[in-house]
Amino acid sequence: MINKLTAKIQKTQAPIVVGLDPMLNYIPKHIQEKAFKEYGETLEGAAEAIWQFNKEIVDKTYDLIPAVKPQIAMYEQFGIPGIAAFKKTVDYCKEKDLIVIGDIKRGDIGSTSAAYAVGHIGKVQVGSSSYAAFDEDFATINPYMGSDSVKPFMEVCKEEKKGLFVLVKTSNPSSGEFQDQLVNGRPLYELVGEKVAQWGEECMGDTYSYVGAVVGATYPEMGKILRRIMPKAYILVPGYGAQGGQGKDLVHFFNEDGLGAIVNSSRGIIAAYKQEKYAKFGEENFADASRAAAEDMIADINGALEAAK
Amino acid sequence: MINKLTAKIQKTQAPIVVGLDPMLNYIPKHIQEKAFKEYGETLEGAAEAIWQFNKEIVDKTYDLIPAVKPQIAMYEQFGIPGIAAFKKTVDYCKEKDLIVIGDIKRGDIGSTSAAYAVGHIGKVQVGSSSYAAFDEDFATINPYMGSDSVKPFMEVCKEEKKGLFVLVKTSNPSSGEFQDQLVNGRPLYELVGEKVAQWGEECMGDTYSYVGAVVGATYPEMGKILRRIMPKAYILVPGYGAQGGQGKDLVHFFNEDGLGAIVNSSRGIIAAYKQEKYAKFGEENFADASRAAAEDMIADINGALEAAK
Repeated sequence: MINKLTAKIQKTQAPIVVGLDPMLNYIPKHIQEKAFKEYGETLEGAAEAIWQFNKEIVDKTYDLIPAVKPQIAMYEQFGIPGIAAFKKTVDYCKEKDLIVIGDIKRGDIGSTSAAYAVGHIGKVQVGSSSYAAFDEDFATINPYMGSDSVKPFMEVCKEEKKGLFVLVKTSNPSSGEFQDQLVNGRPLYELVGEKVAQWGEECMGDTYSYVGAVVGATYPEMGKILRRIMPKAYILVPGYGAQGGQGKDLVHFFNEDGLGAIVNSSRGIIAAYKQEKYAKFGEENFADASRAAAEDMIADINGALEAAK
Repeated sequence: MINKLTAKIQKTQAPIVVGLDPMLNYIPKHIQEKAFKEYGETLEGAAEAIWQFNKEIVDKTYDLIPAVKPQIAMYEQFGIPGIAAFKKTVDYCKEKDLIVIGDIKRGDIGSTSAAYAVGHIGKVQVGSSSYAAFDEDFATINPYMGSDSVKPFMEVCKEEKKGLFVLVKTSNPSSGEFQDQLVNGRPLYELVGEKVAQWGEECMGDTYSYVGAVVGATYPEMGKILRRIMPKAYILVPGYGAQGGQGKDLVHFFNEDGLGAIVNSSRGIIAAYKQEKYAKFGEENFADASRAAAEDMIADINGALEAAK
């Protein structure tokens, strides 16, 4: 899957991923009203609104982009109907040949970690049959519990040729509370980065490893260092746009081959119609605004990469 | 909810929690066969087997114990039917007046963390209505991303009078890879413990805080130190039994009031019938074996607490 991701990024010339993190207040009124008319103001109604919103954004952007990243929390909050909308979104994006990064940030140990791994990127055995319950292509995972939490995911990655992004340095303001603590003079996130590089050696694709890392756009200097520590890890970069990151901050997250990083934008794309810049599209045409925002983001990042050559 | 947990522990004289982490290979053949006959060897069949297994264990132990801790990964691996079995289990345990600790180990930031929090221990808004999607009483959470991930959960705890257990020092062998790293001469888990104590001050119940901690039974010396660092935090202690912890190792996880810790056993109770010690019950009477194992665990821990007085 890391080979497919690399190939799709080269083909689209778009090292970006659209974060499908639908908050209800991003969803245009006409979609909400239609869903609530059919299902009432219920969990089912919210799930239907999310699904219709996602579908339209995917329909208007899938040819531009290599991948999407649905954030499962935004679906899980609506209970079982919400999770059904997550699954419907995953399936639909795969039909459109998009790579799906499940932003699940799971982390547990042993058989529990294995359960998350088979559930999200592998197959679970039931008697003599097996089922891919969620079937994302990549999953994000949390490293706090150490190798015991990562190894079961690596096993599944090897079997299924799928991939991981391990949280290393996250984009949020308080990420430093623990991640930046100095251990023998070096921040903890560097140690985690070294582990990612080690884990990654066991699961290599053609050029990059199945084991990637999450490093926030909001910390470009740290991105530069982590790029060197994990040369074969694809870096998933959240924090672009709404959280403050810009194309010019991101050049050092990439390798000299122009690859090695994929930048996420969620709200900046899916709720673009709410920005002054894209207001001309109007609420009805929200997905056209998303397309325009995706095009602008691609141009911003490619421009910055070009300028840095 | 922390007041209710404390009261229930005092009433049952049982500082234990039964981990409802049903692996299919723990579930007796007759239950699996019945479920597969009805639903086939499908995700629905697996979910039905899990639910029937849980129900029988709960029916045979609910009067002995204050709380259960379903591990959501064991349900999530079976997709949407699995998650429906999780919800059914949560609801059933609450009907039996058990406190439900959702072992979800979620961790994300800002609005995403808030989505997990409202979904699991709070209420989500849909138009003018609100819904408690999963409605556990407590949730476990991962601190790697810092306060940004914990605060949204604290907000919901305050509103709903629910509780948290933050991962501090986990029971697994590789927990030390990052958690034990020395920061200014002190292990990272102590820093996390200090943060738990700080967060906890903002959310106090009568005697203990809504913000508790997870500290593994397999590290009793660390438990002793963390007990002092977080005097008002309830400690959820995994790793008893199958992972190696014993009652005598656990006395320092408790405060002098005999409270402050709740010890989890999963496989040691729910799959007790597979142990030689409880084999006499037979596979058909697996839930009687679970009851006996719960009684033995309570006696072991209370005996150790008594001996330490």
